[in-house]
Amino acid sequence: MRVRNKPWAESRMNDFPQYMIQQAESHKGKWHEVFGNNNPLYIEVGTGKGRFITGMAKAHPDVNFIGIELNRNVLVTALDLLIEEELPNLKLMVENAAELQKCFEKGEVSRVYLNFSDPWPKTRHAKRRLTHSSFLSVYEDILLEKGEIHFKTDNQGLFESSLLSISQYGMLLSFISLDLHNSYYDGNIMTEYEEKFSSKGSRIYRLEAAFNN
Amino acid sequence: MRVRNKPWAESRMNDFPQYMIQQAESHKGKWHEVFGNNNPLYIEVGTGKGRFITGMAKAHPDVNFIGIELNRNVLVTALDLLIEEELPNLKLMVENAAELQKCFEKGEVSRVYLNFSDPWPKTRHAKRRLTHSSFLSVYEDILLEKGEIHFKTDNQGLFESSLLSISQYGMLLSFISLDLHNSYYDGNIMTEYEEKFSSKGSRIYRLEAAFNN
Repeated sequence: MRVRNKPWAESRMNDFPQYMIQQAESHKGKWHEVFGNNNPLYIEVGTGKGRFITGMAKAHPDVNFIGIELNRNVLVTALDLLIEEELPNLKLMVENAAELQKCFEKGEVSRVYLNFSDPWPKTRHAKRRLTHSSFLSVYEDILLEKGEIHFKTDNQGLFESSLLSISQYGMLLSFISLDLHNSYYDGNIMTEYEEKFSSKGSRIYRLEAAFNN
Repeated sequence: MRVRNKPWAESRMNDFPQYMIQQAESHKGKWHEVFGNNNPLYIEVGTGKGRFITGMAKAHPDVNFIGIELNRNVLVTALDLLIEEELPNLKLMVENAAELQKCFEKGEVSRVYLNFSDPWPKTRHAKRRLTHSSFLSVYEDILLEKGEIHFKTDNQGLFESSLLSISQYGMLLSFISLDLHNSYYDGNIMTEYEEKFSSKGSRIYRLEAAFNN
């Protein structure tokens, strides 16, 4: 996705400390204090413009959510959504997916969402895919036992390589759809990409997988 | 598939004992004697009219093949193909997939092929699908260590339920294609179904999975 540079994004983020997490590392092991409750914590890695995570937070007020995105230029749109919706159970943060162990204790996260992650189609870029084993190992390090990742994409190659890498990692599939919008799955909340691609007739692939630890 | 009843099928099979295995149980543990060599043994469960297994046997003369099918009315067509091709490394037999342990020792089979198996779409028939855990356990009982199943189908629901059941069984995926005829996979030999459905534009799904023992 090409995104316009927004030089004002950082200062807008600084204006809303109640929604934008600063110095995430300082909250490691005590995220319940940030939210003021002991509800489970679900994170989305690669939140983009935030439509999915905002919809989830609205639909599930008894769950805490954090949307994580490295690109400020898109995350600032998620912030605008959050300001409008005033959701107490959603926070946003700018962080690198490869370094999430710095921010979360083992077991502190109950679920990881990955939605329409960059497919990195070239073989030499396979390690950058958010379902590559090196990232699975990051998620395992912060998730509770038997913790789950929930993943959807319209990209066939990314879905194939994710199935392989998830299987080879020893994780167990617990749900799969090879055509989400023509299946019985209920409660789907669409991302921006999903609406765009599915309205063009693209298939949406989805899976849930649990660590086997 | 509805198949015309062929009352003469059994007697035709009896006329070709060099191709049709009778009393398979008597060969348990000594299939190399039947083929007269120590080549690996690949079996296809649900051989149908035999186009796949005949093509495989032609392409791989250094592998022994057995095509297994319960329905004589379709298997007799496979027999006709085999009579025409005169392949020494292919045999056919009428057997129930649930009872293969009676015919093969543990480790005697090197690979199991499942092609376009009956999808049994109703939930109450899930146990009849050839990728249900009860059948996986049969294949595990006759395959060598880390033995593989190779599976393809045009049926999305069957492929989804197979991915789940294979994963939950603890098997590891080693190859997957969600659109075989638009992928880089080489050496595909088509079944009768595959030619028919892919020519109509249906997607063909394929996977390979290994037991993790």
